[in-house]
Amino acid sequence: MDIKDYMQNLGRRARTASRQMAKADTNAKNRALLAIAAAIRRDEAKLLAANGEDLAAARAAGLEPAMVDRLTLSPKTVATMAEGLEQIASLPDPIGEMTDLRFRPSGIQVGHMRVPLGVIGIIYEARPNVTVDAAGLCIKSGNASILRGGSEAIRCNQALATLVKEGLQSAGLPADAVQVVETTDRAAVGELITMREFVDVIVPRGGKGLIARLLAESRVPMIQHLDGNCHVYLDDSADAAKAMAVVENSKTQRYGTCNTAESLLVARSVAATLLPPIAAMLTAKGVEIRGCAETRALVPNAKEATEADWGEEYLAPIIAVKVVAGLDEAIEHINKYSSSHTEAIVTENHTHAMRFLREVDSASVMVNASTRFADGFEYGLGAEIGISTDKIHARGPVGLEGLTSQKWVVLGNGQVRG
Amino acid sequence: MDIKDYMQNLGRRARTASRQMAKADTNAKNRALLAIAAAIRRDEAKLLAANGEDLAAARAAGLEPAMVDRLTLSPKTVATMAEGLEQIASLPDPIGEMTDLRFRPSGIQVGHMRVPLGVIGIIYEARPNVTVDAAGLCIKSGNASILRGGSEAIRCNQALATLVKEGLQSAGLPADAVQVVETTDRAAVGELITMREFVDVIVPRGGKGLIARLLAESRVPMIQHLDGNCHVYLDDSADAAKAMAVVENSKTQRYGTCNTAESLLVARSVAATLLPPIAAMLTAKGVEIRGCAETRALVPNAKEATEADWGEEYLAPIIAVKVVAGLDEAIEHINKYSSSHTEAIVTENHTHAMRFLREVDSASVMVNASTRFADGFEYGLGAEIGISTDKIHARGPVGLEGLTSQKWVVLGNGQVRG
Repeated sequence: MDIKDYMQNLGRRARTASRQMAKADTNAKNRALLAIAAAIRRDEAKLLAANGEDLAAARAAGLEPAMVDRLTLSPKTVATMAEGLEQIASLPDPIGEMTDLRFRPSGIQVGHMRVPLGVIGIIYEARPNVTVDAAGLCIKSGNASILRGGSEAIRCNQALATLVKEGLQSAGLPADAVQVVETTDRAAVGELITMREFVDVIVPRGGKGLIARLLAESRVPMIQHLDGNCHVYLDDSADAAKAMAVVENSKTQRYGTCNTAESLLVARSVAATLLPPIAAMLTAKGVEIRGCAETRALVPNAKEATEADWGEEYLAPIIAVKVVAGLDEAIEHINKYSSSHTEAIVTENHTHAMRFLREVDSASVMVNASTRFADGFEYGLGAEIGISTDKIHARGPVGLEGLTSQKWVVLGNGQVRG
Repeated sequence: MDIKDYMQNLGRRARTASRQMAKADTNAKNRALLAIAAAIRRDEAKLLAANGEDLAAARAAGLEPAMVDRLTLSPKTVATMAEGLEQIASLPDPIGEMTDLRFRPSGIQVGHMRVPLGVIGIIYEARPNVTVDAAGLCIKSGNASILRGGSEAIRCNQALATLVKEGLQSAGLPADAVQVVETTDRAAVGELITMREFVDVIVPRGGKGLIARLLAESRVPMIQHLDGNCHVYLDDSADAAKAMAVVENSKTQRYGTCNTAESLLVARSVAATLLPPIAAMLTAKGVEIRGCAETRALVPNAKEATEADWGEEYLAPIIAVKVVAGLDEAIEHINKYSSSHTEAIVTENHTHAMRFLREVDSASVMVNASTRFADGFEYGLGAEIGISTDKIHARGPVGLEGLTSQKWVVLGNGQVRG
């Protein structure tokens, strides 16, 4: 197979399909989503069988257990995929919305119309559920998509692709609106991220290695997601109970998620009262504490934190703890070491809360709430294609609206410019 | 000079200044803008002298007349620069605006806060007025900027940079908030567009050669402006007077602007009535008509259009004219050949108008209005840093808001995720 030809062909077909998707009505898009959901429920056994072949091959190739885990489907996860599509069908259609139509002194009326981005390339790990989520979000937002999942999931992804195409066609939409790349050749990714004429945006969902490669090679704009080195800062006036609750939930509810707190900053004036009980809670839960000298004086079982700890996304039961002079040092530390994902302050001081919100340069900034809330569902987006740590276009959790753009609409009655 | 060191140093200082600019209050930013405006008026003679040296060098180097024209300052253009800053000072401050704060079932309140992008790199031709416009827009939007103007304007740009720094400092803002690159070495651009750690977005304002280079080499997201191959489509139900006015204004008001129409499409049913008088008007104004066979049958003085004409941005008194079957063919033609800048339909048919707005994939879509309206001032943005033909982030005329982003704000009272 000539990979370049193959990918260019996918791209050309996606571009054509994107024109039809852009004008598709809400009802047709919802019918397609519900038809795909029904087909997934109907073909549960086929999907599990395809997944079983993927799993056997992955195990034979010595794939690591965490990856095998994410690759594995069960009757429950198959049902969850179908439910996800049904939820997307129930969301309002963002496309075609016209807003802010205002008359200008020239007599024209100027406003915005929300429109699809066009063709979205999604590159992700071997997680079959992402195939369905991504296809669903792209259909509802009127985009065409080219999906390139991890090669270990190829059989299951192809089975899903067949159901997606069937659902699209049953609703009168083009089957090419969702195309799954059917080669596992890595060169396909290289084509996908450089076909500017056919691809409007790339959404990478994967590890740091993937992002690093795309940053170096992509010629298409990206909605990217780097690490989540999230901070909780306990301010001078923090309420002790809220501090305990927010740290516990931010750090220990789940260790492997990108919105989990990795660093705790504590104002010096409250460190002696707040840190020991919080450290005891963390230790009791098996969380390793890596602290600055002041932290270690208050928490004898804390290990010594090195410079590297301040920038680390552990994704593990480890937390870096630093005592700071107060709000200014906390903000400075966060803006220096954070990955700009999510940060929280615990404080009763309104001025400090407002300064933290304004001056911390991260996608989500929170007052008296757990960093774990940084999530499309919790924010009310209904669904999420990823969490952007970029500043351009979409920032933080990206839902349907992040897959759209706004064009300018001008309504006149023969006006010309003077 | 080690260009890499020099640019990295600018970048580091810009990043530091960007933190201070992000929290600067509206009053300080406006004071800086007004102080710079006053200094420009005060130092008119110095600026004209520096410009005179630039012009002498440019003429000696054989710079082409159009470029010399854009490089030239006069007392009037100096005053216009100052007025531009005063206008920017009078615009509302977009930064810090909080919107959509809604309670979620978890008890947290979630919304957006508008924030600066951070550090903006602007690369432009030898036009001193762009230095002032860009600096002003970046100051008001709370960004730090690194400005790299065409080398022919270096003396004048340095003189302007001194005044900008003076104005910033007089308002208590960091002088590094606006830095003008003081080397004409082209390697400086190479550094600017790859310093991801220090630059958040690149705004290129220049010719196709510049954009092509940046597309190939930039590692920083761009708000880019490609050509304006704008279309006017005269629909079956076009009003003859509106058709005449819109074509005349779109094509002939100014020939060298990106929102000038370059192609005219006419529905077959009205071609015989509408085309001859419009062609006579265009011919009388010295516009060369390049038409399809049907056009040439109706307009004997029309030359033959080639395939290349449909994609051409003439920036000259030339227009490509094609007779089409109707709305479907017009939309298809535009989506194939347009540069996605601005397109207008002339029609009295509501359904056709709405379809054109929805289905034409361009940054500005217009009904019964001249393409020349595609402009930040005409749209009410107050000022414009450029017109984006991208779909990501900002589309069409880019004003202050295009230089900002939104972060998520979460207000809680100790909530944790269940």
